[in-house]
Amino acid sequence: MISMEKGSGEPARTPRARRIPERAHPVTLRDVAEAAGVSTATVSLVVNKKKDARIAEETRQRVKDAIRSLGYRPNAMAKTLVSGTSRFIGLVADGVATTPFAGQIIHGAQDEAWKHGYALLIANTEGNGELEQDAITMMLEYKVRGILYSTWFHRQTDIPASLREADFVLVNCFSNEPGTRSVVPDEVQGGRSATEVLLRHGHRRIAFINATIPAPAKDGRLLGYREALEDAGIPFDPELVMEAYPNQEGGYGVTGELLKRGATAVYCYNDRMAMGLYDGLREHGLSIPDDIAVVGFDNQEVIAAHLRPPLSTVSLPHYELGAAGVRMLLELDGATEGISKIHCPTVERTSVRAQAHA
Amino acid sequence: MISMEKGSGEPARTPRARRIPERAHPVTLRDVAEAAGVSTATVSLVVNKKKDARIAEETRQRVKDAIRSLGYRPNAMAKTLVSGTSRFIGLVADGVATTPFAGQIIHGAQDEAWKHGYALLIANTEGNGELEQDAITMMLEYKVRGILYSTWFHRQTDIPASLREADFVLVNCFSNEPGTRSVVPDEVQGGRSATEVLLRHGHRRIAFINATIPAPAKDGRLLGYREALEDAGIPFDPELVMEAYPNQEGGYGVTGELLKRGATAVYCYNDRMAMGLYDGLREHGLSIPDDIAVVGFDNQEVIAAHLRPPLSTVSLPHYELGAAGVRMLLELDGATEGISKIHCPTVERTSVRAQAHA
Repeated sequence: MISMEKGSGEPARTPRARRIPERAHPVTLRDVAEAAGVSTATVSLVVNKKKDARIAEETRQRVKDAIRSLGYRPNAMAKTLVSGTSRFIGLVADGVATTPFAGQIIHGAQDEAWKHGYALLIANTEGNGELEQDAITMMLEYKVRGILYSTWFHRQTDIPASLREADFVLVNCFSNEPGTRSVVPDEVQGGRSATEVLLRHGHRRIAFINATIPAPAKDGRLLGYREALEDAGIPFDPELVMEAYPNQEGGYGVTGELLKRGATAVYCYNDRMAMGLYDGLREHGLSIPDDIAVVGFDNQEVIAAHLRPPLSTVSLPHYELGAAGVRMLLELDGATEGISKIHCPTVERTSVRAQAHA
Repeated sequence: MISMEKGSGEPARTPRARRIPERAHPVTLRDVAEAAGVSTATVSLVVNKKKDARIAEETRQRVKDAIRSLGYRPNAMAKTLVSGTSRFIGLVADGVATTPFAGQIIHGAQDEAWKHGYALLIANTEGNGELEQDAITMMLEYKVRGILYSTWFHRQTDIPASLREADFVLVNCFSNEPGTRSVVPDEVQGGRSATEVLLRHGHRRIAFINATIPAPAKDGRLLGYREALEDAGIPFDPELVMEAYPNQEGGYGVTGELLKRGATAVYCYNDRMAMGLYDGLREHGLSIPDDIAVVGFDNQEVIAAHLRPPLSTVSLPHYELGAAGVRMLLELDGATEGISKIHCPTVERTSVRAQAHA
């Protein structure tokens, strides 16, 4: 499986030693002190930026010069031993490899963590319980400030026993256990927003293709759809709500049923479903948005932005979930318990056009 | 943007204290020693699993019981101070949030790291140089065993100065600087495999839609295509090689050109391009694979497996890149320098059918 190519025409030498000179003899606080002609205590005060320590500016500069010329790196681990917690926040994620969603949670959590001087310690479990247990144990041993426990799709979760040993926030999942904190997308608002895109363009006979799989998203998005119709004074017609498996094949398969209902617009549970529905509608010789308007959900970039025509959709706020999770953990938003719901923004493209009679 | 919902009907209390009892008073080695009636040195020997230390089995058990009942967690940071390096491997990634590829590199690197007792410290830079600098500095301060420096698409890279302070392996990227180690996909073999899928099904007039953007993938995949044709005794026809922007719009836009060349099969630079080409071919009333066979590259799951018909493609081995990067860093594959090329496996679906005359 693996073939090796040597760097060509390279004279014999020890490249590793060149690359990492400090490996042979890591630069210590003592080395810096000797080079600067001061005590190790003085170096420590400069390194830890104790501004009020009485050190002559000239001495401080000499220490800084020695640090730079020797390439000294303070040991972040040592600080941890003093403070009792590290500058780490743990993030347990169950779908880094299999969905693009976990990536955005990581991105948001990391940006927010760094803003407050924390680094993110990420463990990817892909749903494996044993890996999850190991990951949490590892994080506890590294004395993390707290743990974000995240799932790639919004769902209820059990709280692993070891997680209770740390401060934690559930991200994209929740527990009914009182006193837990969690951050989830506002599915009801998202469903309302998706429907409102179609209402704003004059549609009144709007179908909703929901998922077959039970989930907070299924209930929430349906409720949002009903709320939006009610606000617009349109009676709810159960005939217009269908269900399909939430992927391309599901969306394709439900096309025939959908066309029997006489809708002028359809809101799909997710973008993948909309992608399959596009194929189905095309096979029936129908054009989007002229014959029927389509709205998705998720804003899965690689799909939604590149369908023909590009799909109007509602974005799942994964970046914000990660960032809000960190703020909640650090108690920056003032919340000490409960479920925080994050807004799902509308992304309008060209799969919806104004109705002529609107 | 954020609304809060309190846990309903919850009596007033201090939930945080219940959740993390050890926060108020972290359990120390001394607590365990007192509970077990032994010295802290004895606890330390048991915790660090010094099997040859002369401790009575009964004493050892008493210490273990105390550890369990008090919920003591050894401090992983303290071990680091003794050994000089931590049990961390750093992973710098530039596209965790924006592509599904980085997720697989993370997955592979983490699985392999854990196998050898290392945890992965991941930093996501999204190509931001300042973030990258901060990330590497942070990793150095945490005394990582080494750093994997990864890019989301295969390319040549500069080596940041700070990276040289650690052992490092380039993952999905490479440098011509002698002595560096890197792991990249075998693009030439991948291009050969993609073409061979079509040759095996009897096609002889095979078009290749390459990318417009210069990259090792562009050169390598073209070379593999040419090698496969040559092995099959088919003369290379430059008319059959076209270029397009490597996304859906690019693939769609090149359809007309492709149809002028009289190919019975086409190999696309990536799956996104193939997705656009599907739309273009459909608009021309052509059926896949009956009228024309299509092969992609990347095996981008959310696309390739769910097109109509599902797309035969060649997989980019991101998981293996991450895992091989860790093995190279830890010198488990015997390689101390050079470029290691990872095999790109063929994934056959139904977008290719045997030619009647084959």
